Amino acid sequence: MTFQLLHTDSGSKARHGLITTAHGQIPTPIFMPVGTLGSVKGVHFKELREDINAKIILGNTYHLYLRPGTEILHKAGGLHQFNGWDRPILTDSGGYQVFSLSENRKLSEEGAMFRSHIDGSKHFFTPENVVDIQRVIGSDIMMAFDECAPGDADYQYTKKSMERTHRWLKRGLERFDSTEAHYGYEQTFFPIVQGGGYRDLRIQSAETIAAQGRQGNAIGGLAVGEPTEVMYEMVEVVNNILPTDKPRYLMGVGTPANLLENIALGVDMFDCVMPTRNGRNGMMFTSEGIINIRNEKWKDDFSPIDPNGKSYVDTAYSKAYLRHLFIAGEMLASQIASIHNLAFYLWLVEEARNHIAAGTFAAWKAIMVKKVATRL
Amino acid sequence: MTFQLLHTDSGSKARHGLITTAHGQIPTPIFMPVGTLGSVKGVHFKELREDINAKIILGNTYHLYLRPGTEILHKAGGLHQFNGWDRPILTDSGGYQVFSLSENRKLSEEGAMFRSHIDGSKHFFTPENVVDIQRVIGSDIMMAFDECAPGDADYQYTKKSMERTHRWLKRGLERFDSTEAHYGYEQTFFPIVQGGGYRDLRIQSAETIAAQGRQGNAIGGLAVGEPTEVMYEMVEVVNNILPTDKPRYLMGVGTPANLLENIALGVDMFDCVMPTRNGRNGMMFTSEGIINIRNEKWKDDFSPIDPNGKSYVDTAYSKAYLRHLFIAGEMLASQIASIHNLAFYLWLVEEARNHIAAGTFAAWKAIMVKKVATRL
Repeated sequence: MTFQLLHTDSGSKARHGLITTAHGQIPTPIFMPVGTLGSVKGVHFKELREDINAKIILGNTYHLYLRPGTEILHKAGGLHQFNGWDRPILTDSGGYQVFSLSENRKLSEEGAMFRSHIDGSKHFFTPENVVDIQRVIGSDIMMAFDECAPGDADYQYTKKSMERTHRWLKRGLERFDSTEAHYGYEQTFFPIVQGGGYRDLRIQSAETIAAQGRQGNAIGGLAVGEPTEVMYEMVEVVNNILPTDKPRYLMGVGTPANLLENIALGVDMFDCVMPTRNGRNGMMFTSEGIINIRNEKWKDDFSPIDPNGKSYVDTAYSKAYLRHLFIAGEMLASQIASIHNLAFYLWLVEEARNHIAAGTFAAWKAIMVKKVATRL
Repeated sequence: MTFQLLHTDSGSKARHGLITTAHGQIPTPIFMPVGTLGSVKGVHFKELREDINAKIILGNTYHLYLRPGTEILHKAGGLHQFNGWDRPILTDSGGYQVFSLSENRKLSEEGAMFRSHIDGSKHFFTPENVVDIQRVIGSDIMMAFDECAPGDADYQYTKKSMERTHRWLKRGLERFDSTEAHYGYEQTFFPIVQGGGYRDLRIQSAETIAAQGRQGNAIGGLAVGEPTEVMYEMVEVVNNILPTDKPRYLMGVGTPANLLENIALGVDMFDCVMPTRNGRNGMMFTSEGIINIRNEKWKDDFSPIDPNGKSYVDTAYSKAYLRHLFIAGEMLASQIASIHNLAFYLWLVEEARNHIAAGTFAAWKAIMVKKVATRL
């Protein structure tokens, strides 16, 4: 994997770059649709390619390990062969899911014992076998196994957790460096900065992560309940330390406004379930602001969902029709909302790239950040 | 609306024809995907046009009357404008739903009082206002309001019910003939043959319906629990009476084998929720037989869903991947299954048309009827 830094904004720390992987190129800043179980909920891959223009999608190690399991994935020749997505895939390590989804998890220095949220069966994740699983999945970018401390964890807990995450990182890197890709193309491994909402821990963690000299770096443990200002402060602190010639991935973030603010702080990659999950509940992110399409005010508004929208659903369906589908509980409602929202997120980061390249990012961002947060 | 009879099979009563409506032409025999609430569940209209090649879809008067309601539909300029489907639409009258879905329904000579299955609100359907509602919906083909007697109803009940349906038909036709289309294009009205599983009642009803001289005729009250042989017998009896120069629509039927047998008996139009509803439960109809895709045997079968399938989902996704999506409860599973099954149904009737035109229908049907019913 390579990263070319193409433009740096003069009015902020925003950057525009280009990641090259075995499955194609990813212009940054980029948003990555979440395909937890190997599918982006409600969206065909054809639509991801042609209508949403997704450059890379996510899979999740915890979920894919449980279903379909590594045996099937290995037989298929990896996730790309299994689901037919031929562009890059990044896999989350499953650390977050072990702590948020499974019951009776038991943490030790060795790893995390957990029970499946599906059938209660017992499993054990270690920094090493999480690399092995991601080798089987065949993701272009794999993530280190980390403990994601709760947003309200105290200093001592967060420190201990961060230190363990660093020790786990060392073990994960050793396994990664001593093993080969299964399917003949290069995989890369991103370490993850932790440290909660504590400035000194974030500094310490960012220095540890930067020192690994890997091809990209991630920031985890944010957008887990802390105030937005704390998130921005931590990202700023961390980005002052993480190398500028490597992509920076802020995990699990966020709203359109969060994306713009963090792009201004020098973040290059984002993922979040918000466009699809909130979309399935009727929240539509548009170039003019946020729409709750279930609201009665849209019942006879026959205008397009978003007249500036780039996906075909924006003009093929009206607000009134989409509202009807939501009220009637029709599956098509979630499908339309997911395509629209993802296309909007991908449009937003594309616009950000264009404005960074043109030197107009700061002014554009100042206007957009208000627009996209407006409730229509 | 016009109907041209193009070919009649020499070895059976199968026919190939062409219906022309204000929204385009429909080659027969045809299968019509069901879009109860103004959307075919899990399927974009773009997919209906481009991948499934649907020529006409159904809407349901009962459901559309309750949601979004006639006020919205009228403001939109009819269902075509509301949902963006620019090909023909046929609307079921809602008779079946009044009797199967709503509670506390009360039948009188005047009409049917019923409570909404959604909020319990009270409504009254008459043969006249069901025409009015379908005028607002703007369907190309509207259906008479009928009582669909249960499949196990006794002779006396079925006879009385049929006679009322005939009286209701007269009232519906009067309303239809004395009103105009709202949106400037022609609508047509199909009467419905009833009479349960009773030969003499079916004869009486078919004669009454044929005598109306309408542009098309429907057969209702079948596939409601009676043995398949009874269905075929009743269709044969009725089709001996219904005029050959008008399309015949067998309502709510059925399996691929049912379609082939009834085509051989001279039926021209079909609708059924089976391809979408059973598809959402993992039943895949293919050119080689029926697949329960949830079955473990498909877990590492990476071959296409149906190598002969005509829709892009057939080759874009494998059996193993589709099984994974079903087991994991992913929405995409239902979407893929619905597109595949509908594309298969549309392919099946297209093949039937081709074989009728080529004079090879009887031989082809004899082979296909076994194939499509095989459990793989």
